[in-house]
Formats: sequence, structure tokens, C-alpha cells
Amino acid sequence: MALAEPLVLYTAKICPFAHRVELALAETGLESDKDFVRYEIDLKNKPEWYQPKINPASKVPAIAYGGPKAAGDQPSPSSTKLAESLVLLEFVADLFPNSSLLPKDPVLRAKARFFIDTFATKFAPANFAFQGGKAPSGAEGLFSAIEQLQDLMAPEGLAIGDGKEFTVADAAVVPFFARMEVSLKNDFGAYPEGEGRKAWETLQTDGRFARWRKYWETVKARESFKTTFDEDYLTKQYSTRWTRA
Amino acid sequence: MALAEPLVLYTAKICPFAHRVELALAETGLESDKDFVRYEIDLKNKPEWYQPKINPASKVPAIAYGGPKAAGDQPSPSSTKLAESLVLLEFVADLFPNSSLLPKDPVLRAKARFFIDTFATKFAPANFAFQGGKAPSGAEGLFSAIEQLQDLMAPEGLAIGDGKEFTVADAAVVPFFARMEVSLKNDFGAYPEGEGRKAWETLQTDGRFARWRKYWETVKARESFKTTFDEDYLTKQYSTRWTRA
Ligand SMILES: N[C@@H](CCC(=O)N[C@@H](CS)C(=O)NCC(=O)O)C(=O)O
Ligand SMILES: N[C@@H](CCC(=O)N[C@@H](CS)C(=O)NCC(=O)O)C(=O)O
Repeated sequence: MALAEPLVLYTAKICPFAHRVELALAETGLESDKDFVRYEIDLKNKPEWYQPKINPASKVPAIAYGGPKAAGDQPSPSSTKLAESLVLLEFVADLFPNSSLLPKDPVLRAKARFFIDTFATKFAPANFAFQGGKAPSGAEGLFSAIEQLQDLMAPEGLAIGDGKEFTVADAAVVPFFARMEVSLKNDFGAYPEGEGRKAWETLQTDGRFARWRKYWETVKARESFKTTFDEDYLTKQYSTRWTRA
Repeated sequence: MALAEPLVLYTAKICPFAHRVELALAETGLESDKDFVRYEIDLKNKPEWYQPKINPASKVPAIAYGGPKAAGDQPSPSSTKLAESLVLLEFVADLFPNSSLLPKDPVLRAKARFFIDTFATKFAPANFAFQGGKAPSGAEGLFSAIEQLQDLMAPEGLAIGDGKEFTVADAAVVPFFARMEVSLKNDFGAYPEGEGRKAWETLQTDGRFARWRKYWETVKARESFKTTFDEDYLTKQYSTRWTRA
């Protein structure tokens, strides 16, 4: 598959929202810096042209699409600038209607989108609350959100349909599971010391999360995950953010 | 256009989320109670089968799609049950890929979805805060959200592209504008008396909102709006909810 027009992805390795779009692009078979330009934004020191020329909200991810071929730091005024990770996932799926990113069947497409909605309204707030040390019942809220996602998953493999195809549903959640793993394993969070590691242990062993574990194994074995996720980099970045006194 | 399978829409006249889906169905040319079943749920007295058989979250809108033709209150276990208004808008668009609901061009589709995102993250919270009497700067937050939506609109007509086609972006926002009009005009809200009417007056006269006014006129003239919105009913319902002491 190839792109009809030039595409620049503005991204940051640390950002789970940007990672969503990197996964989707990788799953279409596009190669970063060959088929499209991957431009890393340093979130601690954003280039001054980024907000006025690429994204008024000054966030990653963003995409510049169309117009003449241009370097990431010399955006053309005639390309279209798009933002918001979930909008961009659908955009990549629309650019590649024959990719697996969205199933052909309207019902399965609805299930993929409902999965993402459940992630956004259940998992994301529970994960945020736990990591911030503000979850009233410790890891239980996070556990329960993971169970709700499990309940929506295909019996095996990936999330949607027969579990054989990587869809936008997978692209939307995987970056957050990857960062959850790094945080819990290393106890990076504002909860009492040891609670992250303990939650990770539970996720690794409790029968309650058997489906999730299989899911997570399936995802981690994929090329798209390996080429878009840098665990060492993330661990290093997070370690400075969550130093415990 | 016709549906391949039976469809029941569970809805409630009062609910803006459900109204989204009614608009989308109307815009495809489907007629309620001819081409699909419209089943009104009394939100103050929900049928006991609704939550277990249709929507575990016990909200409207929901759709039962496929399976044998069935009455709304006798749902077939073999139909697929779908929920969440934005998922359902995309579902209707997917059932009718040749309708106007989503443009063909991936960039315009992204713009429609970004418009909805801006509505959800900017307008919805500002509207909610103002109506609840909790907006720190009165109607200004709401006004500013309306301006942000205006900035994303086509120069004239409807929201997206050349403004000629009714898309999911219109379906997503129109129900909330309709309810905002009823609330402001009648001063239904927890703000100090008169502030709703004053805000409505401003929206009607201030040059700042010229594009929004045109938009709102365009929408209200459409058949799909007229057949799905019952202003008198809504005014009556809201008046009991917001009685001022
Ligand atoms: N809702 C946005 C969220 C994107 C977001 O929050 N990105 C963060 C990094 S993970 C960002 O760029 N923040 C701005 C900053 O750090 O200056 C999306 O889904 O794309
Ligand atoms: N996020 C849902 C919200 C739907 C919703 O909140 N519906 C309300 C009525 S407007 C409802 O059914 N509430 C449950 C109840 O009233 O019992 C969607 O977009 O469909």
C-alpha cells in the first residue's frame, strides 16, 4: 500500500496518543522515513513553529497531509493539518480502506468503536486515578476496567471480530497498556510504595486477567509494536518523572 | 435507500444523544415506523427488560440490528445490540456509505470527526457549566465554545466541506443547539434569573455569532430537524425540571 500524498506525522516517543497513530501507520505496512516523514517533537522544548503552523492545541500527534513534499520543520501552508489521535486513527483507516484497521462489516466497525469508547470512559480514568494515587479502592478500579475490556474482546487473539485482524481498537489501547506495564513494573506512580509492582504481579498471575494476558502477549509479538515502542527509553523518561522521596 | 436488516432504535424525545441518531436516520431518507422501528423509552420509568436485554448501561440511544423482525419490546436475542450515540452515528453512516453522512474524501471525514471532538471537549462542558450555574465567567465560556465551532465551519450552509451536505458533524451538534435554544429562551437553568434570556439575546444579535445564526437557520429549515424535534414537548419537560423558587 502506498500513500497518494505526502504525509508528515508529528509525534513523540513518550506519548501514548501519538503511539496510536504510529501503530496504525505501521500496520498498513508503511515505513517510517521511507513512505512518510516521522517528526519527533520534544515536548519539553517544542519548536516555536509547531503551535502556529501545525497544531493550535500544541499537542502531538498531528498530521500534515498533502501539498508539496516538505521537511517536517518546514511545513507547507498548503498541506492540511489534522489532530486528535482518534480522528487520526480513522483518517489512516480511511486512507487505506483495504487495510485491516476497520473491518468491512458495519457491526464489527461499531464494535471496534465501542471498544475504544469503553477504553476512554472506563480504563483511562481508572488508570489515571491509580497512577496519581487518587483511586479510592487502589488498583481495583483499574482491574475492573481491564475486565470490562476483556468482556468486549474476541475469544482469542486481537480485540475485534475473530481476533485475527489488527484494528483501530487495538491501536487505541495498546499504547496505554504498554505504558501501564512500565509504570506498574517499576512502581512509577503516586500510590504507596510497592502497590504498582503488586498490581502488576496480580495482572500476571490472577485467573481473572487470563484473557488480557493472552491479548497482551499477542500484541507484543507483533512487528508493529516492536518497531514503535521503546521500553528502555520510556522507563528512563518515566523514572525521572516519578522519583519517590 | 433501504436497510438490509431490521433495525430498532431505542430513543427518548428528550435526549440529545438519542436525537443525534434520529437525525442521521432521517437524513438517509429512512422513515420512522416504516423502514425501522422507533421505540420510545420513558426514562423516568424504564421497562425492566431494557437494561438486561438492550443496553447494560441502561441509556438511550441504543440500536438492535439484525435477527428476525421483532417488536421493540420483544427484542430477539439474535439481534446485535449497539450503544453510544457517536458509535451509532458512524454505524448509520456505514450502513449507508452513499449517503451524505460522511464525505468520501478522507480529509473531510477527518474534519467532520474533529468538529465533533471540539464540540465534545469545548461546547459540551461549557454548556453544562453555564446551565448548571457553575460557569465562572457566566455565558462567556459558552460563547467562546460557539466561536470555536464557527471557526471550523464551512463559510456557509452546514458544517463540513462546501456546507451543502448534512454530515455526522451536524447530527452530533444540532440536538444540543436545539436544547440550548429552549433552555436559554425560557431561562431554564441554575444561573441567576434573566441570564439565560440575556445570553439568547446576545446569540441572536451580536455580530460575533453571525455564522452560528446562519448555521442554525439552515438546520432548522431542514425536514430532518422538523420531523425529529418537538419544541413544545421539550419546553414542557424542561419547565418542570428547572422551576425557580
Ligand atoms: N486528546 C489528544 C491528547 C494528546 C496529548 O495530550 N498529547 C500530549 C502528549 S501525550 C501533548 O502533546 N501535550 C502537550 C505538551 O506536552 O505540551 C489526542 O488524543 O491526540
Ligand atoms: N454517552 C452516551 C450518553 C447517553 C445518555 O446519557 N442518555 C441519557 C438520556 S439523555 C440516558 O439514557 N440516561 C439514563 C437514564 O436517564 O436513566 C451517548 O452518547 O449515547
